Amino acid sequence: MGGDRAPGEIVAGARQAFEELGIPVVLVGPTDGTLGDTGGLEVIAASEVIGMSEDAARGVRTKKDSSLVRAAEAVRDGKACAMVSAGNTGATMASALLRMGRLPGVARPCIATPLPALGDAPTVLVDAGANSDCQPEWLVQFAQMGAAFYTERYGLARPKVAMLSIGEESSKGNALTKATHALLAAAPAGDAFEFVGNAEGRDLLAGGVHVIVTDGFTGNVALKTLEGALRVFMDILLQVFAATPENKAAGDVLFPTLLQRAEPLDPENTGGAMLLGLKGVCIISHGSSSSKAIVNAVRAGHDLANGDLSGKLAAAVSAEG
Amino acid sequence: MGGDRAPGEIVAGARQAFEELGIPVVLVGPTDGTLGDTGGLEVIAASEVIGMSEDAARGVRTKKDSSLVRAAEAVRDGKACAMVSAGNTGATMASALLRMGRLPGVARPCIATPLPALGDAPTVLVDAGANSDCQPEWLVQFAQMGAAFYTERYGLARPKVAMLSIGEESSKGNALTKATHALLAAAPAGDAFEFVGNAEGRDLLAGGVHVIVTDGFTGNVALKTLEGALRVFMDILLQVFAATPENKAAGDVLFPTLLQRAEPLDPENTGGAMLLGLKGVCIISHGSSSSKAIVNAVRAGHDLANGDLSGKLAAAVSAEG
Repeated sequence: MGGDRAPGEIVAGARQAFEELGIPVVLVGPTDGTLGDTGGLEVIAASEVIGMSEDAARGVRTKKDSSLVRAAEAVRDGKACAMVSAGNTGATMASALLRMGRLPGVARPCIATPLPALGDAPTVLVDAGANSDCQPEWLVQFAQMGAAFYTERYGLARPKVAMLSIGEESSKGNALTKATHALLAAAPAGDAFEFVGNAEGRDLLAGGVHVIVTDGFTGNVALKTLEGALRVFMDILLQVFAATPENKAAGDVLFPTLLQRAEPLDPENTGGAMLLGLKGVCIISHGSSSSKAIVNAVRAGHDLANGDLSGKLAAAVSAEG
Repeated sequence: MGGDRAPGEIVAGARQAFEELGIPVVLVGPTDGTLGDTGGLEVIAASEVIGMSEDAARGVRTKKDSSLVRAAEAVRDGKACAMVSAGNTGATMASALLRMGRLPGVARPCIATPLPALGDAPTVLVDAGANSDCQPEWLVQFAQMGAAFYTERYGLARPKVAMLSIGEESSKGNALTKATHALLAAAPAGDAFEFVGNAEGRDLLAGGVHVIVTDGFTGNVALKTLEGALRVFMDILLQVFAATPENKAAGDVLFPTLLQRAEPLDPENTGGAMLLGLKGVCIISHGSSSSKAIVNAVRAGHDLANGDLSGKLAAAVSAEG
């Protein structure tokens, strides 16, 4: 029931994932027909909905029969191996955290958001918004979990991990980044990952680094800054195309290549953000998710659960704890 | 002597500012001919240079005859009304701070960087990088100084000021933004500015808000994220134009409109970033500044000094102190 285009696009994506990928998707929501034609997919009943802009903590506390809470319980109870939601991000996190619980040894779960890198493997930003005020030790765990997630998701051993800061030198940054930098540099990660020092905002889309670690406040500001910049550039392009009939004809010529080259930037293709550090897989899809985004998220959730992501995250954190 | 294209483009910009705008520019640098043809502009001798990647504090401490230190002394001594540098940002800040000194009542000077907003007045980001770890009271002063700067620079009374955070509600953010939000909301700014609550990363280029306040770490990450996104989009466009002969022809049709519409995004046109809170005007130009950027920076420095920016900043801070 979550997302700007729910339940239509969500149900359509779930059906498509089952029909095309053979992944048995369980829907969670009202059983009164609201979900439309579910194509025979199992539905776990949930009579309430936590709205997109509703207070997350209160929503989870008061709406125990909401689709988000019931979905997290389904994972906890072994009825599903992963949950996917395009709904209220804070309520998704709170439901998953409260119902699935934290992995042993994890101080704070974090959000890992894959960012596209042109002609290169994605760069994963952790924490992209779960924890606004962080301790250096938590950021070290974000690095450990981000690297384990990267290896599992993209098949790359020993990914390169960088610290998001405001200069390449270890002396650059704020108190949090400097302390975290020192911890990461002092405790070699062995085979798990390679700490390559500081990255800057301009490295987020540049490729070359696999995991970029930051606190959830800075990560969320950076993510929304990227989204805003993307929108402005698209607006400029559309204005240019619309300016004259000649421009419109030229735009028609360019449009197919443009779509193809810009495709990596489309968040629909990344499979969504992941909540790392829980006893279960939780994927947070963009609020505007289409059926295509849901298919990719279901596939990612299925693969990660089958690869025992949670077990690998717990091992990554305990290896250095 | 500062900047990736110094001294050629810097001297050319200074000459142009004098010849076209009638602003009497004083150059600071070696008098051995390194500066080339200065077109008769006065040169204040400075035998040393603080390099672009040199440690800022040590550079300023040890190179007392550097062009940066001598330029700041020229403002302090009344030989110039403003300084413009495309050199080492940290060393520019340190020189200006140590030689000009802080305005009375200012806890910490901050960097104000104008961001373009399509079809709207620019949005000024403060602090864009001077202070990595901040107190709420400093951010309140950044808001006061940012608003006074905005009014002086863009002629707008009572600009709208927002706090950069990760959600619209006052409850969203980290400890610093929540405390600052409370201070700004509790102490009405009267005629100086209107506090409109939180802004998000996607609002940086969206217009509508005139001053966005943040700590220098977050501000610098956001700024470099925008720069990185701009580069990626330009790369995609160039790849699209180069993909086929048909695309190239279409690109030639679109190029003039594209250049015109994208012009507001060119940092060369903004006049550069400003260091606010000092007894004197200091403009920090981009390291890659061309002569055109220097002309715009000289014009901005001239106008702001003539408008008594420093006096207005001191008044803005003391009004609520």
